[in-house]
Amino acid sequence: MKILCSKSELTAGLNIVSKAVPSKTTMSILECILIDCTDGNIKLIANDMDFGIETVIKGKILEKGVVAYDANILVNLIRSLPDNDVTIETDADYNTSITCEKINFNKILSRSGEEFSYLPKVDMNNPVVLSKLTLKDVVRQTIFSISDNEANKMMGGELFEINGDNLRVVSLDGHRISIRNISLKDEYDDHKVIIPGKTLNEISKILGGSDEDDVSIFFTDKHVIFEFDSTTVISRLIEGEYFKVDQMLNNNYETKISINKKEFLNCIDRATLLVKEGDKKPIIVSIEDEKLELKISSALGSMNEDIDIKKEGKSLMIGFNPKFLIDALKVIDDETIDMYMFNSKAPCFIKDADESYIYLVLPVNFNNVG
Amino acid sequence: MKILCSKSELTAGLNIVSKAVPSKTTMSILECILIDCTDGNIKLIANDMDFGIETVIKGKILEKGVVAYDANILVNLIRSLPDNDVTIETDADYNTSITCEKINFNKILSRSGEEFSYLPKVDMNNPVVLSKLTLKDVVRQTIFSISDNEANKMMGGELFEINGDNLRVVSLDGHRISIRNISLKDEYDDHKVIIPGKTLNEISKILGGSDEDDVSIFFTDKHVIFEFDSTTVISRLIEGEYFKVDQMLNNNYETKISINKKEFLNCIDRATLLVKEGDKKPIIVSIEDEKLELKISSALGSMNEDIDIKKEGKSLMIGFNPKFLIDALKVIDDETIDMYMFNSKAPCFIKDADESYIYLVLPVNFNNVG
Repeated sequence: MKILCSKSELTAGLNIVSKAVPSKTTMSILECILIDCTDGNIKLIANDMDFGIETVIKGKILEKGVVAYDANILVNLIRSLPDNDVTIETDADYNTSITCEKINFNKILSRSGEEFSYLPKVDMNNPVVLSKLTLKDVVRQTIFSISDNEANKMMGGELFEINGDNLRVVSLDGHRISIRNISLKDEYDDHKVIIPGKTLNEISKILGGSDEDDVSIFFTDKHVIFEFDSTTVISRLIEGEYFKVDQMLNNNYETKISINKKEFLNCIDRATLLVKEGDKKPIIVSIEDEKLELKISSALGSMNEDIDIKKEGKSLMIGFNPKFLIDALKVIDDETIDMYMFNSKAPCFIKDADESYIYLVLPVNFNNVG
Repeated sequence: MKILCSKSELTAGLNIVSKAVPSKTTMSILECILIDCTDGNIKLIANDMDFGIETVIKGKILEKGVVAYDANILVNLIRSLPDNDVTIETDADYNTSITCEKINFNKILSRSGEEFSYLPKVDMNNPVVLSKLTLKDVVRQTIFSISDNEANKMMGGELFEINGDNLRVVSLDGHRISIRNISLKDEYDDHKVIIPGKTLNEISKILGGSDEDDVSIFFTDKHVIFEFDSTTVISRLIEGEYFKVDQMLNNNYETKISINKKEFLNCIDRATLLVKEGDKKPIIVSIEDEKLELKISSALGSMNEDIDIKKEGKSLMIGFNPKFLIDALKVIDDETIDMYMFNSKAPCFIKDADESYIYLVLPVNFNNVG
C-alpha cells in the first residue's frame, strides 16, 4: 500500500477515528487504526467493538492495500511532521516507511488488516437530521445525569425519542432527571432508542467544522449511526425498555420561585467550599416572600447568603445535594430560571414555560441548622 | 482582629504567600497563613521553614491582631466572593467571620498566631538589583539541569555568583552544565551562594506585575532575600563549596557547526517519538560537510533526517541523550546556534560568541546503526 496525503488531512482524520481506539484492551488489534484504500477512497477506521468510526480523507492512492497501524505511534509520528505532503508506504512484509520532506521514518510496526473487525454493515434509511450544534448542545445539557451504575445499564445511556417533529432526550440516575425537547425541521417516523453515554461523549468531541452543518442519524434495531462530513460513527444501542419518565413528572406545585441563575449558581458554588470531598452535606434553602436564604453548616464553618427572588405560593425550607443543582444550572442558558416545589420531600422541577427543558432534582433530608 | 480589604487585594496577596505553604507537612501550623496587623500594616505571612514569604496588602485595620488561618480554606473562600469589599473578623475565641455583600461565612477555623514561626530577621544591606524579567529568564534558562539527587544536595541548587557587574548562574546534574552570564547595571561586592531550586521555582511564579520592575536581592551567610513590590521572600541557602565549574570548560574543538535551532529541535522531538518512556535510546548525529544527519533506531522503528548546517573542522559521529539537547535548545532564543565538539567522547558545548550562555552536554555511547 502507498498513499500520499497532506499532513493536515491525515491529522484531522486520525484525530477523529482515534476516539474509537480503546485506551485499555487485551486485544492489540483494537489498538490499531486501519487504513483501507482498496476501493479508491482512503478510509481510516477504528473500532472498539461497541463503537466504531470510519472517515474518508483526501489524498492520492499510489498503490492499493489495507494495513493496520498502532494508533498511538501513527498519530504521534504524523503529528510531529512539518505541514507538507506525507507518503505512507507499507511493503508486503508490513514494513512501513513514512516520509515527509527530508524526514524518513522506517521499519514502523504495522500488520495485516485481516484480523481487523470492520464496522458492521447495517441498513441506513430515513435519517433524522439535526445540526451539529444542536446535537452537541443536547448532549452537553443532559449527559451529566447518566450513571455508571453497573447494576442498571440503562442509566448509562440516554433516551433519544422521536415523535413527529419532536426529539426528546432524557437521562436519569435515580436522584434526578434531565429532559430536553427539540423541535426538528421535519416530521419523522417514531423512534425510541437508548444510546450509550460513551458514544454521545465521543461524538460530541469529533463534531468539528461549522456548527450549522447537519448530522444525519440512522436508527436500526441494534445500532445508531451518525453521519456527518465524510465521517460515519456507528454504535450499539443499549437494549431494553427505558424508565417510564412521564409518570415521574407532574405540574403540581405549592411554591414557585423565579431567581437569577448566575447569582444562585455562584452562591451554591461558594457553599460547597465548606463541604469536604466525599462528605454529603446538604445545602438548605429557605424560601420567603422576596428572598431565598441559602445556608450550610459543616465542620469547616457555616455560611448564609440572601438572594432576591420572586415567589408564588407558600414559604418553604428544603434541602438539596448542591452538586445536583450546580449540574443543572450550569447547562441552562436562561438568565432567570423558574423552580417549582411541592414540599420538602417532593421533587423540585427547574423548567421553562414551554418545557424545552425540565430538570427534576430530588431533595434531601437535613437537620435544621437554624 | 478585624480588617476590611478589597477581594482583589486579598486574593493577590494570598496567591503570593500560598507559594510558601508546604503541600505536605506534619505540622499543621505550617499549613496556615498568618495575618498580622499589629504594627499598622496588613501583613500576610507563610513559612515552610526553608522558605518564607511576607507581603503587605492595602486595607483598613478596624481592630489590631494576629491570627493564623488554614491556607486552603481561606484562599478558596476569598476567591469565591464577588469583587467587592471583604471584612475578616476574628473574635477572642478564634471564631472567624468573613462577610462580603450579602454573604456571611461564620465559625471558620482559625487559631492563635503564637505558634507561628515568623520569618527570620536578617541584616539586609547592599542589595544586588535586577529586573523581574531578567531573574525569571535566568531561572527558566538554567533550572532544568538541577538534580534532585539526595546524595548531593548542591546539585539541587543553582550557583549565583556576582563579580563586579557580572552575575553568573550555574546549574549542573552530572551529565550537563547550564551557565548564563548577565551584565548588571552596577558594580557590586562579590558574592557566591547556592540557592535551592525550589526557592527559584517559586520566586519565578510570583514575580508578577511589570517585567521591567526591579527585584532587590540581599545575601547573608545563611540566607538570600528577594524584595519586590510589597513582598519579601527569604530562603535558606545550600551550604558548602560549589563544583569547580571553570575546570570543566574549555575552548578546544575539532568540529564546529552552525545550525537552525528550530529545525534541530523539531527533528530531535520527532526522533524521541520512537523512544519508549524509561528507555535510554541515544540519537546519533552524523556531521558532514554541509549537512547533519540525525538517526535513531528502536523497537518501534527508525528515523533519519538531514538538516543543512555550516561546518568548520572535522566530520564527526556523536551520540546524545535527546532530552539533554531538547532542554538546552528550548531555552536558547537565538535562531541559529553554534555547537563545538572535540570527539565522540568529549563534552559538546552550545554557546554564543560572547558566552552569555554556555550549555555543556556529555555525549553517550551508541552502537552504530548505519
